[in-house]
Amino acid sequence: MVEQASKKKGRILSGMRPTGPLHLGHLVGALGNWAKLQDEYECYYTIVDYHALMSEYRQPEIIDQATSDVVLDWLACGLDPQGSAIFRQSDVPAHAELHLILSCIVPIGWLERVPTYKEQLQQLKHKEINTYAFLGYPCLQAADILIYKANAVPVGEDQASHLELTREIARRFNSLFGHVFPEPDALILKEQQGSRLLGLDRRKMSKSYDNTIDLKEDPQTMRKKVLSMITDPQRRTKKDPGRPDFCNVATFYRLFAPDRYEKLEVAANCSGAGWGCVECKTHMYEGLAEYLQPIQEKRRKLAQSPERVEEILQDGAAKAAPVAGQTLEEVRQKCNLKGKRTL
Amino acid sequence: MVEQASKKKGRILSGMRPTGPLHLGHLVGALGNWAKLQDEYECYYTIVDYHALMSEYRQPEIIDQATSDVVLDWLACGLDPQGSAIFRQSDVPAHAELHLILSCIVPIGWLERVPTYKEQLQQLKHKEINTYAFLGYPCLQAADILIYKANAVPVGEDQASHLELTREIARRFNSLFGHVFPEPDALILKEQQGSRLLGLDRRKMSKSYDNTIDLKEDPQTMRKKVLSMITDPQRRTKKDPGRPDFCNVATFYRLFAPDRYEKLEVAANCSGAGWGCVECKTHMYEGLAEYLQPIQEKRRKLAQSPERVEEILQDGAAKAAPVAGQTLEEVRQKCNLKGKRTL
Repeated sequence: MVEQASKKKGRILSGMRPTGPLHLGHLVGALGNWAKLQDEYECYYTIVDYHALMSEYRQPEIIDQATSDVVLDWLACGLDPQGSAIFRQSDVPAHAELHLILSCIVPIGWLERVPTYKEQLQQLKHKEINTYAFLGYPCLQAADILIYKANAVPVGEDQASHLELTREIARRFNSLFGHVFPEPDALILKEQQGSRLLGLDRRKMSKSYDNTIDLKEDPQTMRKKVLSMITDPQRRTKKDPGRPDFCNVATFYRLFAPDRYEKLEVAANCSGAGWGCVECKTHMYEGLAEYLQPIQEKRRKLAQSPERVEEILQDGAAKAAPVAGQTLEEVRQKCNLKGKRTL
Repeated sequence: MVEQASKKKGRILSGMRPTGPLHLGHLVGALGNWAKLQDEYECYYTIVDYHALMSEYRQPEIIDQATSDVVLDWLACGLDPQGSAIFRQSDVPAHAELHLILSCIVPIGWLERVPTYKEQLQQLKHKEINTYAFLGYPCLQAADILIYKANAVPVGEDQASHLELTREIARRFNSLFGHVFPEPDALILKEQQGSRLLGLDRRKMSKSYDNTIDLKEDPQTMRKKVLSMITDPQRRTKKDPGRPDFCNVATFYRLFAPDRYEKLEVAANCSGAGWGCVECKTHMYEGLAEYLQPIQEKRRKLAQSPERVEEILQDGAAKAAPVAGQTLEEVRQKCNLKGKRTL
C-alpha cells in the first residue's frame, strides 16, 4: 500500500515520458522536488508510456530501454518504491478507460484551443504527430491525474496553466454526473536558488536540442560537455570581465557546487577576470562530478539487477491499480456503465 | 468458450448502442441475420455502452435499462448466449486500451473526413456531441472490431463504407508495427425480400423520429401504430387504386406475413381498390402480431428473471475478455508497452 493520505497532506500524481535517460534539467526542475514531496504526500509517480507512444510510434523500440533508464534515474535520485507507487501507465488499464469516458464530455474546442497544441504540432513536425491521440493529450493527462483523485500535481512555474484543463474537465464531470473528483491544485515548484538551469548552448535543456548532461553521463563525456558550454558571449578574451549573474556555468555552480562557488570565490574570479572560462569550467566539472557521484553510484548498483526494475514497476502497479480501480467503479456507477470489468 | 473459429468460417463482431428497446428496423436490418450467422461464424455481439455514453452523457440513466432491453430483444430474436459471446463493451477494458493505442497512429484528418461526421454533428445538435470522443467514434469502432481480430462485420448495404476506415487503421498498424490484424471484410446483409422497411411516417425507422414499432410493443399500441401508418399519399379515397409496390404496409406484409399477403390477395385488393387502407392495415396488424407473438413470449419469460441478463453479460465478458486480452498482449509487445496489466 501507498502510505495513507490520512497521515499526509494529500495525494500527488506526476509522470515522465520514457523517451530516453533523464538529465540535469529533470533533476532540478522536478525530480529533486519529487523526492522531497514523498515525506508529506501520498505519491504516485508514473512512467507514461502511452504518452511516449504518441510521439515515438515510428520507433517504439526505444520505449523499453527508456523505461528502465527513467526508473533507474528516479530511484537514484531518491524516489522510494517502498513509500511511493512507481508504475507504468499502460499497466493500469483504468487510465485508458477513464480517458475514454472523459473524452465523451470534453468539447473538441477545449483541446483545439490549448495554446501549446499548434505550437507542438509545428515543432515536432518530423514526428508526424498530427494524430487523434495527440489532440487528446490533455484528456489523457486529466485521466492520469483524476483516476487517483490527486489533490495536487507538482509543476514548474511555467506549467501551471496545463493543469487548468484538468480542473475544468473535473468540474464538468462533477456537474454532469455528480461529485467524484477533487480539483487538483498546482504545486508550484520553486526553482532551486531562483536559478534557471540552461542547456550547454544556453537554450532550454532538452534532449531534442542535444544540449543535455544526463544523470548517468560518464565522467569523460561530462567533462567534454562542460568544457563546451557557452558562457558569456560578451567575454571575448580572458581579460574581459565576466558576468557570473548571467553565465550558465555559474548557475551550475550555485546548484551543484555552492560551497566550491563560495570557497573558490568564483564570482570574483569571473567578474575580476582572474580566471579564464576553461579554468572556471574545470573546477565546476569537478564539483558537478562530486555531486553526481553518489547518484551515479546508486544507479550503477541498481542497474546490476535489471529484473529489479520490472519488479518495482509491478509492485507499483499493484499499489496503483486498486486505487485507480476504485475511482473507476465510482465513475462507472455515475455514468451507468454498470457491469464488472474483466481482463 | 465461444465455439472455435477453426470449425467455422471465421469470427464476426457486431454491436448495438444501448439507448432504448429495439424495433422492427433492427430485426429486419440486422438481428434476423445475426441469429443465422451464429451457425457459420464464431460470433461476438456487444452492447456498446461507451458509444451510447457519447450521445447520452446528459441522461446516462437510460443506459442501464436500455442494456437490459437490448439483451432481452437479442435473446428473444434468437441470439444464443451458449454459442456466442454476448457482452457489454465497457466490461472488457481491452477495448478502451486498444482504442488509445490506435488513436496514436490515426491521423486526425482521417476522422475529420468521415462523411457522416459533420452530418451527424448537425443532426444531433441538441445532444451537444461536439466532443473529442465523437470525433474518434470510428477509432473506437475499429478497436471494437480489431481487438477480436474479426474477419467479417455484418453491415447493411449502405454501411459498407464505415468499415473501410477500420481496414485502413488495421493496415496502418500492421505496416508500422508488424502484422497483427486481419482486415475485416464487410458481410453485406441483403435486406430480406429486397424490401426496404420504413417507419410509420415513411422516413427511415428510427427512435429519434418516433416512428418505430418496437419488438416488445404491446398489441394495443401496435394496433394503433399500424393504423396510423402512412400508406400511399396518391390514394386519397377508397375508390382510388393503391400501389402495393410503393406502400410501406405492403412491405410489412411481405416481411412479416407473406402467406397472408398471398392468401388474402392483398396486392389485388389494393390496386383494384377492393379494400380501404384501414381494412388492409387491420389484416396486416394481425399478421404482424402473430409473427411477433413467439418473440414476445420468449422475451416475457426471460424478463421474469432480470438477474439472468447480468449473468449472460458476465458469461459473455468471461468469453470475450481472454480473446481480447490475447490480441492486446500481441499489440503491446509490438508497441513496446511491455508490462503486466493489473485491475
